Amino acid sequence: MIYFDTSATSPLLPEARDAMLDLMNLSVKGELGNASSLHSAGIYAKEELIKARVEIAMLVGVSPLELIFTSSGSESNNTIIQTFKDCPIIISSIEHPSVLKPAEEYGNPCIKIPVNKSGIIDLTILRSEIKRLTSNNSKQKILVSVMLANNETGTIEPIHEIASVIEEFKDQGYHNIYLHTDATQAIGKIPVNAKKLKVDYMTFTAHKIGGPIGIAALYSRSGAPYKPLILGGAQEDKRRAGTSNVILAAGFAVAARYCAQNQTSKKYQNIGKLRNYLVKELTKKIPTAKIITPLGPGQALPHILNVAFPAAEGESTQLYLDLDKIEVSTGSACASGDLEPSHVLMAMYHDAEVAHGSIRFSLPLGATKKQVDALIDKLPGIVSKIQDISTLKKEKI
Amino acid sequence: MIYFDTSATSPLLPEARDAMLDLMNLSVKGELGNASSLHSAGIYAKEELIKARVEIAMLVGVSPLELIFTSSGSESNNTIIQTFKDCPIIISSIEHPSVLKPAEEYGNPCIKIPVNKSGIIDLTILRSEIKRLTSNNSKQKILVSVMLANNETGTIEPIHEIASVIEEFKDQGYHNIYLHTDATQAIGKIPVNAKKLKVDYMTFTAHKIGGPIGIAALYSRSGAPYKPLILGGAQEDKRRAGTSNVILAAGFAVAARYCAQNQTSKKYQNIGKLRNYLVKELTKKIPTAKIITPLGPGQALPHILNVAFPAAEGESTQLYLDLDKIEVSTGSACASGDLEPSHVLMAMYHDAEVAHGSIRFSLPLGATKKQVDALIDKLPGIVSKIQDISTLKKEKI
Repeated sequence: MIYFDTSATSPLLPEARDAMLDLMNLSVKGELGNASSLHSAGIYAKEELIKARVEIAMLVGVSPLELIFTSSGSESNNTIIQTFKDCPIIISSIEHPSVLKPAEEYGNPCIKIPVNKSGIIDLTILRSEIKRLTSNNSKQKILVSVMLANNETGTIEPIHEIASVIEEFKDQGYHNIYLHTDATQAIGKIPVNAKKLKVDYMTFTAHKIGGPIGIAALYSRSGAPYKPLILGGAQEDKRRAGTSNVILAAGFAVAARYCAQNQTSKKYQNIGKLRNYLVKELTKKIPTAKIITPLGPGQALPHILNVAFPAAEGESTQLYLDLDKIEVSTGSACASGDLEPSHVLMAMYHDAEVAHGSIRFSLPLGATKKQVDALIDKLPGIVSKIQDISTLKKEKI
Repeated sequence: MIYFDTSATSPLLPEARDAMLDLMNLSVKGELGNASSLHSAGIYAKEELIKARVEIAMLVGVSPLELIFTSSGSESNNTIIQTFKDCPIIISSIEHPSVLKPAEEYGNPCIKIPVNKSGIIDLTILRSEIKRLTSNNSKQKILVSVMLANNETGTIEPIHEIASVIEEFKDQGYHNIYLHTDATQAIGKIPVNAKKLKVDYMTFTAHKIGGPIGIAALYSRSGAPYKPLILGGAQEDKRRAGTSNVILAAGFAVAARYCAQNQTSKKYQNIGKLRNYLVKELTKKIPTAKIITPLGPGQALPHILNVAFPAAEGESTQLYLDLDKIEVSTGSACASGDLEPSHVLMAMYHDAEVAHGSIRFSLPLGATKKQVDALIDKLPGIVSKIQDISTLKKEKI
């Protein structure tokens, strides 16, 4: 199989598996306790948790005390959004559902800033919305939540510029504007340092960088508002209740170390070249293909290519590719099973046909030219077969 | 080491480790995808998730469609409590913090029903509180949340009787009273069937029955109110967003099957005999020991013994026992690191000294008489040494 769906979930690193297996073996022997317990087995668990936290915090340049373990990127996102319940919450119109839905639920109001055809947020509108929302009240608390890179198209958002916009307001005495970024897709693919990005909060998760599903991190800047989503025990310095997940944290730490030591964000530049080769060959073979992912320097993550084939439903293309042992995605895995067109592509193109015809290729670090050639070999035939039987209008082809 | 702290977390079953390792190996090879993805690797993951859900649902006698995977018992408890935000929430005064704290946060009001010296809830007061809260409004929505068995003392609560009390009100036209039970400690130790208990919601978790930390279940009766805690993707039939944790679910399923096939709830009766032997010998050797766990038939889980030693702080006893390679707990692991006396023991005894002197032994299924004898051998010397140096008044001894 050729697995070009690493943005849905990355294969587990063998080193992460081995670290988790070691701890599982200790647990089987009763030597790995609850990290809140004060006996030897508990203290050992707690030490493992501390080591993991340090390693993961280092990857994104924050203090371990500012890093909270959660069970998923979705939980991390929800935690911050609900912290600002009843405040104005400003998001981009292409956020992941785990930002979008809680923002709609808890924001008062929830403001969605439009994006251009590359998927990049409109900073002018962002600035004017902040101005409008703060106009009568210098103490107004506001959350701005914009993803670092989009999961469906790979578009990189100008988080640094957004932080500068907020900085301008702070210079004018508006001190209660906070910035959250969902870095789930970006981490390990481009350099990500929360302090340099000047965000107050940042979400990222283990299973997009070769760690296990079931553990994620939430950076919450010391001093920024914070309200736990899960109440109960005193774990995570009273910021997130629930038995500490030492085994998954160890797997996460291995993946973080792998990213740092192997400088994966540099290595992914080569995957960017492979992606660009895929674009060149695809547009040659299928001239009607509409490249969604912006390809200018620094505009998108290097490993993602979102492309729409007119009059060829993405689900059909995906299924045929799967029969040919190539695994790709339509939109995001989170939205799969949902027949609604992608809200991301609709925000960019306002065109349901583009959204329905879209396919996302997300290449792992180990992707090869041979695999890309296999894809290029199969795809034109599949697309033309689907177009032949499609109910969508043929004159559009 | 002798591990008598299985209520904090149980050693992982080797069979659960093996099942998870098999799936981890598939993930390493890129053959286990995101369960929301529609390609082969995703469909395989989804099938594994379905199998796990069926196995776990069977253990507690519910439909797989009524079972929601969460990341912890704490998350399951929080999910139900916040579903009843702004409604009256009635709990026992000895609930786990992950019920107690959200009930205090979201209940309007939060009513705590007292317990007797055995830790058993006062049904008369429960009935009169429901009556008071519904008096003006037959449509009043109320949540009653009472644990099936207490984590610190093992006390079993009369959930069936509580369900009957609620049934009485329903017969009188009060149809919006719902019952949740936290069965985290009870599961696998005594027979637990959610339908027979007549609860609307039930929490239980993998790592108390030999499964992994990081996954838990929430039974939510079809038709009962439900509001997701984590919003976002459509996972868990839109009831809990976040990438499905197929690997941990498989480990959980193995533990559930182990409980069912080995009839652990029957086997724990032998552990009850061992526990009673421990009580007999302890009270002989340390006549001042105060047995907290009620020992009448069916009054407590068979494997838990909570005992207080006057003028001997529990933390000291625990640490000395750990030096002698016996791992036990003071109160619950969730409260550890907290210097407050246990709210459970305070609710039962209204006596901080009893609470501070308490130790919880929780015996695993594999506990032996030899291990118990080792404990009985060490404990009197340790307790007397601590009492000698204790700042607590000696005349109380």
